Amino acid sequence: MDAVADIQSEYDHRQIEISKVGVKDIRYPIIVKDKKKGFQHTVASINMYVNLPHHFKGTHMSRFIEILNEFRQEQLSLQEVQSILTRMKARLNAKAAHFEIEFPYFIEKAAPVSKAVALMEYSCKFVAEKSNKDVFIVSVTAPVTTVCPCSKEISDEGAHNQRSLVTVAVQFKKFVWIEDLIELIEAAASCEVYSLLKRPDEKYVTEKAYQNPMFVEDIVREIYKTLSADDNIIWFTVESENFESIHNHSAYAFIEK
Amino acid sequence: MDAVADIQSEYDHRQIEISKVGVKDIRYPIIVKDKKKGFQHTVASINMYVNLPHHFKGTHMSRFIEILNEFRQEQLSLQEVQSILTRMKARLNAKAAHFEIEFPYFIEKAAPVSKAVALMEYSCKFVAEKSNKDVFIVSVTAPVTTVCPCSKEISDEGAHNQRSLVTVAVQFKKFVWIEDLIELIEAAASCEVYSLLKRPDEKYVTEKAYQNPMFVEDIVREIYKTLSADDNIIWFTVESENFESIHNHSAYAFIEK
Amino acid sequence: MDAVADIQSEYDHRQIEISKVGVKDIRYPIIVKDKKKGFQHTVASINMYVNLPHHFKGTHMSRFIEILNEFRQEQLSLQEVQSILTRMKARLNAKAAHFEIEFPYFIEKAAPVSKAVALMEYSCKFVAEKSNKDVFIVSVTAPVTTVCPCSKEISDEGAHNQRSLVTVAVQFKKFVWIEDLIELIEAAASCEVYSLLKRPDEKYVTEKAYQNPMFVEDIVREIYKTLSADDNIIWFTVESENFESIHNHSAYAFIEK
Amino acid sequence: MDAVADIQSEYDHRQIEISKVGVKDIRYPIIVKDKKKGFQHTVASINMYVNLPHHFKGTHMSRFIEILNEFRQEQLSLQEVQSILTRMKARLNAKAAHFEIEFPYFIEKAAPVSKAVALMEYSCKFVAEKSNKDVFIVSVTAPVTTVCPCSKEISDEGAHNQRSLVTVAVQFKKFVWIEDLIELIEAAASCEVYSLLKRPDEKYVTEKAYQNPMFVEDIVREIYKTLSADDNIIWFTVESENFESIHNHSAYAFIEK
Repeated sequence: MDAVADIQSEYDHRQIEISKVGVKDIRYPIIVKDKKKGFQHTVASINMYVNLPHHFKGTHMSRFIEILNEFRQEQLSLQEVQSILTRMKARLNAKAAHFEIEFPYFIEKAAPVSKAVALMEYSCKFVAEKSNKDVFIVSVTAPVTTVCPCSKEISDEGAHNQRSLVTVAVQFKKFVWIEDLIELIEAAASCEVYSLLKRPDEKYVTEKAYQNPMFVEDIVREIYKTLSADDNIIWFTVESENFESIHNHSAYAFIEK
Repeated sequence: MDAVADIQSEYDHRQIEISKVGVKDIRYPIIVKDKKKGFQHTVASINMYVNLPHHFKGTHMSRFIEILNEFRQEQLSLQEVQSILTRMKARLNAKAAHFEIEFPYFIEKAAPVSKAVALMEYSCKFVAEKSNKDVFIVSVTAPVTTVCPCSKEISDEGAHNQRSLVTVAVQFKKFVWIEDLIELIEAAASCEVYSLLKRPDEKYVTEKAYQNPMFVEDIVREIYKTLSADDNIIWFTVESENFESIHNHSAYAFIEK
Repeated sequence: MDAVADIQSEYDHRQIEISKVGVKDIRYPIIVKDKKKGFQHTVASINMYVNLPHHFKGTHMSRFIEILNEFRQEQLSLQEVQSILTRMKARLNAKAAHFEIEFPYFIEKAAPVSKAVALMEYSCKFVAEKSNKDVFIVSVTAPVTTVCPCSKEISDEGAHNQRSLVTVAVQFKKFVWIEDLIELIEAAASCEVYSLLKRPDEKYVTEKAYQNPMFVEDIVREIYKTLSADDNIIWFTVESENFESIHNHSAYAFIEK
Repeated sequence: MDAVADIQSEYDHRQIEISKVGVKDIRYPIIVKDKKKGFQHTVASINMYVNLPHHFKGTHMSRFIEILNEFRQEQLSLQEVQSILTRMKARLNAKAAHFEIEFPYFIEKAAPVSKAVALMEYSCKFVAEKSNKDVFIVSVTAPVTTVCPCSKEISDEGAHNQRSLVTVAVQFKKFVWIEDLIELIEAAASCEVYSLLKRPDEKYVTEKAYQNPMFVEDIVREIYKTLSADDNIIWFTVESENFESIHNHSAYAFIEK
């Protein structure tokens, strides 16, 4: 191996530091901490970057994959994000390391009346950075039902409603459960969304949603109110995209603390 | 150019004919025949394939692009699909030519009460083949609103509804307008979808949809009934995907003549 | 529950049978049989459809989800696809049941020289149908490297090459391993693709690929030759999409037995 | 219309201002200024947002669509982005207006040797904001070929190469042509990408790319150097994603001024 030239370590004369260089869109089976069951298996999409000092020509891309492998015993656990960042900095001689990971997350959820249980899927994302400052952002996207208050008010009967995707991203002092962020989102909608609804459940969710109409603006404000009151939350953003049932485009709202 | 070897034309000893070989995912500005305005500009995604006889090593990929260019004066018109297929067969010495094209199509649509006009976007696809048999399939996807009949029936008030995408694909005897297929789809839904709705329009579409609940099954059956009765239609498929507002998955129905 | 009307079971007067009706795009954690390790965890996207006789107004969508749940002890195993189809037919009073499932699949793969081991991701799809005929199609998509024979032949040095996605779909007599289909695909390319390559590995794959140039046509023909000679394979299709490094579109070939 | 309640204008007691609220993913045919031909037709995807003061319950979504319509004579021209922002602020009583638009852009490009002309597609994005500060960012993504310097150095013959997507986003003092940003990107790669290449062209691009190997790091640094030296450019970011032909993931670099 010594006989093979290390082009990447050569001196670069352009004197330009690169903020982020690394590998993108690696799919990887992982294990995530699960509030109820201890842990769960899922599949993630991962990006890993470091900064590159101005005097190096290139980074060593294979080392990112090696680090991922080292942290997988059976599979990669998310508990180890900080250790991964530390190792990225050490192994790649970098002052800053970035780690981004997205994955579907599943929760057993009981229907509101029949109590029939089925798996619901949510989307999660972690963005972690170790440099002169440390960053750890947890982001959760949950589907909900929204009934339009205007449509309900002006119509003799019925009201248009739709599936919406609500995303909350937070920075926090102490550990935050994915489950708690999901609960927060679902509480702020006209009604929750379920995988399995029997007829009495469908009656319940239809009526609950109709009695609880929410604009896209209402959803982000309700969540803003709750998160602002939570001492554990340092920073957050909330966004909601409503896939309007009466239009071919979305209604959208975004708010940042 | 003569000095450069033509590897593709060399003899291939494996004796295996290839059904389709060519270029895929070419983005191209085109002009499409418009029922009301004569024509409209849009941007398409195009696939072009021919069969490859067993004795040739490869096809000549650049010729597909040359043919596309020749049919563009200012821009490519869809009137010329048959001529493109004929030229593909000739230029590539092929017995079969395939041409697939997808594009967004825009129609000015008036809101039901205020008559405010705005552009609505639909998706269109043409699949054309010239071989021992000729095939020309026109496919249109239109968004609509669907209100769930079960939810309406069992609930004291309200009913869940959502945006659905309905796709109709047809083979026909004489020319079919995209506009007529869209009209057919929109007539079969709980209500049409619009780009621009003022409050009186929103009242109208909410109430119309509520008075006209449709399962995903109803939509495909209604369209089946109409297309079956049309002598000009030789073959068709109908599919509907409802992005359920109470679930995180879709309800789906498909029917073929 | 009895008091709640069953709209779906009502009589439908249009007398139109629907080929496929059901649920689409359900994400679900599953367990798949793994040739080396016994089994592996992954996350699937699932569609479940039945036919609907002409006299019923609608199908019972919630039953699809219930069936999925019943087959999950901890998680759903793919061994049970036939039993799922049987139960779908019984529970939904249907003559035909369709089950489609797609999922990423991971294999530990050693680099060619350094023997460094890392996980490679492949895409798999099963399409199963139980009706008057039974269908079971296994489909695997693997990334490979392809070097252009024409570019190599005509250039003084170098040759353009790119990542390609090759998909093989098969119907078979007795069980086929995903691993064996992947091996078949990788053997037919200029070179395999790896997750982790150290410098001596990169030298090896660069030189191997350069010595082994393949058109998109060559890849599908090589695989056709091998599958045609295999008595266990009843039917198959092969397609390759090359994401050309010198163009902004793909080269594509498709062949069917 | 007066009889219909205006829920959106009602007083909101939560006292929370919303940063961005509006419509998302509207597809729309537009006309863009073209350096060579005067203008060109294309199809855009548009987002329009305003801030919402804390005392209003909701924004008036239909007004966004009305504004889009007003600026379309035949079709919407991008020259009018500033006027659109001004009108959004006025019509929606907002202090901040955001306008985002993405569209494919086509340029006639001659092959390097044969001079055969064909259309190349690029992706463009404008992000414009009018508030206490004004923002206008033009972003262009162009595909290029990259040959790996390490692979070339260590291998006896050949070198792995691939399609890469390079994105440059700039803020500027006076008008910047899309064409000039594309030229800048293409000059920084191992070789440009073309739609149509005859054999002598393919020889040329293969050899040029091989003689000009570039890491993902080299590309962003070369562009950084050029943009830093340009007085008209106030701020910029450069990113490159290389779809590695020897891996199933991308190499990525990002740099910001």
